[in-house]
Amino acid sequence: MWRELAVLGRDARSGGYRRYAWTGADTDCRAWFRAQAEARGLAYELDRNGNQWAWLNMPSARAEGTESADSGTVSVGDAVVTGSHLDSVPDGGAFDGPLGVVSAFAAVDALRARGARFAKPLGIVNFGDEEGARFGLACVGSRLSAGLLTPERARELRDGDGVPLPRAMERAGYDPDSLGADPERLGRVGAFVELHVEQGRALADTAHPVGVASAIWPHGRWRFDFHGEANHAGTTRLDDRRDPMLTYANTVLAARKKARLAGALATFGKVSVEPNGVNAIPSLVRGWLDSRAADEETLASVVAEIERAAAERGARDGVDVRVDRESFTPVVEFAHALRDRVAATLATEGGAGVPLLPTGAGHDAGILSAQVPTAMLYVRNPTGVSHAPAESAEEDDCVAGVTALADVLEELACR
Amino acid sequence: MWRELAVLGRDARSGGYRRYAWTGADTDCRAWFRAQAEARGLAYELDRNGNQWAWLNMPSARAEGTESADSGTVSVGDAVVTGSHLDSVPDGGAFDGPLGVVSAFAAVDALRARGARFAKPLGIVNFGDEEGARFGLACVGSRLSAGLLTPERARELRDGDGVPLPRAMERAGYDPDSLGADPERLGRVGAFVELHVEQGRALADTAHPVGVASAIWPHGRWRFDFHGEANHAGTTRLDDRRDPMLTYANTVLAARKKARLAGALATFGKVSVEPNGVNAIPSLVRGWLDSRAADEETLASVVAEIERAAAERGARDGVDVRVDRESFTPVVEFAHALRDRVAATLATEGGAGVPLLPTGAGHDAGILSAQVPTAMLYVRNPTGVSHAPAESAEEDDCVAGVTALADVLEELACR
Repeated sequence: MWRELAVLGRDARSGGYRRYAWTGADTDCRAWFRAQAEARGLAYELDRNGNQWAWLNMPSARAEGTESADSGTVSVGDAVVTGSHLDSVPDGGAFDGPLGVVSAFAAVDALRARGARFAKPLGIVNFGDEEGARFGLACVGSRLSAGLLTPERARELRDGDGVPLPRAMERAGYDPDSLGADPERLGRVGAFVELHVEQGRALADTAHPVGVASAIWPHGRWRFDFHGEANHAGTTRLDDRRDPMLTYANTVLAARKKARLAGALATFGKVSVEPNGVNAIPSLVRGWLDSRAADEETLASVVAEIERAAAERGARDGVDVRVDRESFTPVVEFAHALRDRVAATLATEGGAGVPLLPTGAGHDAGILSAQVPTAMLYVRNPTGVSHAPAESAEEDDCVAGVTALADVLEELACR
Repeated sequence: MWRELAVLGRDARSGGYRRYAWTGADTDCRAWFRAQAEARGLAYELDRNGNQWAWLNMPSARAEGTESADSGTVSVGDAVVTGSHLDSVPDGGAFDGPLGVVSAFAAVDALRARGARFAKPLGIVNFGDEEGARFGLACVGSRLSAGLLTPERARELRDGDGVPLPRAMERAGYDPDSLGADPERLGRVGAFVELHVEQGRALADTAHPVGVASAIWPHGRWRFDFHGEANHAGTTRLDDRRDPMLTYANTVLAARKKARLAGALATFGKVSVEPNGVNAIPSLVRGWLDSRAADEETLASVVAEIERAAAERGARDGVDVRVDRESFTPVVEFAHALRDRVAATLATEGGAGVPLLPTGAGHDAGILSAQVPTAMLYVRNPTGVSHAPAESAEEDDCVAGVTALADVLEELACR
């Protein structure tokens, strides 16, 4: 199962994955998902936002309980769902997303092998466009379904080549007119559990292959536009320049310093320059700040300090600085009751408590958490590397992850 | 004449010009050149490297003197040539290059109106791909003709989309197989005079609309590759990062400081980032340094100090820094005899001496100067802006430039 998926959308040069929403690689991954569902006799559904679902026993859409072939009477809102996403960042690793989907199918196999009897519907989901690598907004599939992104705004998204999201969906064979909130489908879900490779090294130095998420740090993206004056690099005296590259460079260093002092994270990972010529002082340098912190107050204060540093240096350089907040996700505290039940289930395995970890990364589970009780499991990542080819997980730890997920699903869906 | 040219290759949004070698805009400019030549009854030639020539009286290619319709006996190697280039940097101004070509045609018109009788052949040239905006190497047309760039290396040049130079030439209807040194054609030229808009403000505060070039500073381009480790911006602790954006930023600021202390110029105007994602610590930041100084020793010392600063910071950041010199042009001292004759011609106009100016900018005249006596005239630029839409020259100053050029051509070609 893993081997079939591992070849899709992989770049031969970098060894990383380029599975961007609505591209050929994405289509290949989606076909893989459907084939896995059908090979197991699961009922396949594509929802209005391009998220894929596979049901072991399909929940009813009606408001009243109904008879299911597998499991007798079920109630709407009782379904237990697991899954993650299959798309990637540019040159991403093999595990971020796919590990959660592959583990979901493997956990269903394990539960069937155990002869588990299901008291509630059980589903697997692949959320579309989680990384936002192509259209610049993360978790588009889950945001749309949760009503946190309007279809109008989604239709205005464009990729780096100017291709609008609706055009990209059409080219991939999907209907962009159907986009929108999906309360009926999400309303079926009583619990969502996402398994994910860990994106840091908190588990790496412990005896635990699996941890449970406590919270997702608040995080956001801010676009800094540094407007200077284009001029000839070979003839313009230094004193006559208004060089926005200097202001940008100073802001990059200031961001690191402010984040360090506050125990937060701040990164400039993307930049674009106009005209971007070797012998031209730029007219515009545009840099994107990604910043995260344990609480919203700290985050706001770090970003304000970076903005202040940029403005001060801009005044010296004759450069005009404008800052736009492009996205913001408040802190996510996962539902305590579900989290504690998941942790308790896993703790009985080894007798010891399972680690509870916060994370700075956004997830579909974070998006859904406002409407559905959600929990996350993390599988140990020895390198701690994420969003790059060196991202890794040991096979034993992946197996432990599948077992833990199966235990949790059995606890939630079979009792 | 100016108005017809002014609309070609202009970007509606920026107001700047995008006349890159072998594009549609370049083809339009070339058609304009040929039409101007033919409208004046000048003999049109396209050379093996795509440079365009227009001859008032065509020099013989033979080693012996021959009869010309206009001017009686001429000797090979006596031709007087003026001109410049029509291509532009990204979002360049209207004057850099075209002013020299337009003024050349206007000077021929002025000399004919004066009833000048020519003792030597007089030609106008448009050198191809002077700015190097598309293929990254400046003065490709004149370098090839002068034998300073081999056709093999030229054929390996690729643009930002990976299109090789030969393919681009073919698409534009030119034959890339003909590229190569052209000693026979350059051997006809006894003097080359290039008129150019000034690219700084040295004339702006004087009473002189026109100046004469003394020298071109040595200059070069160095590519700095900062290799770090791609990772997730939201989950990687600051201490676990190897972020090349930090090293790049520090190097940008160091370059400015070292240049200021040495009285030199240093600019990072172009950067590319991999993977260039908002939530990804980059694996690679590549920045191009353009640096220039009054002498080669100062230049070498400034660049060495910038490299040292980059390596030191790289060691702190866990970032590997590699530096490649992509191009280097030694100092150009224009031929003193020709320069003094040009200056003397112009000095008699107002009775006062004409300003002699050094420049940091490269030109086809600099390339040719190793093989042909060359001189340059600069026309005052009140903004001092260059390589950007705000580049300017007053109409009166442009007319003064044409008059000065006609005077110089008359002095050189009619005596």
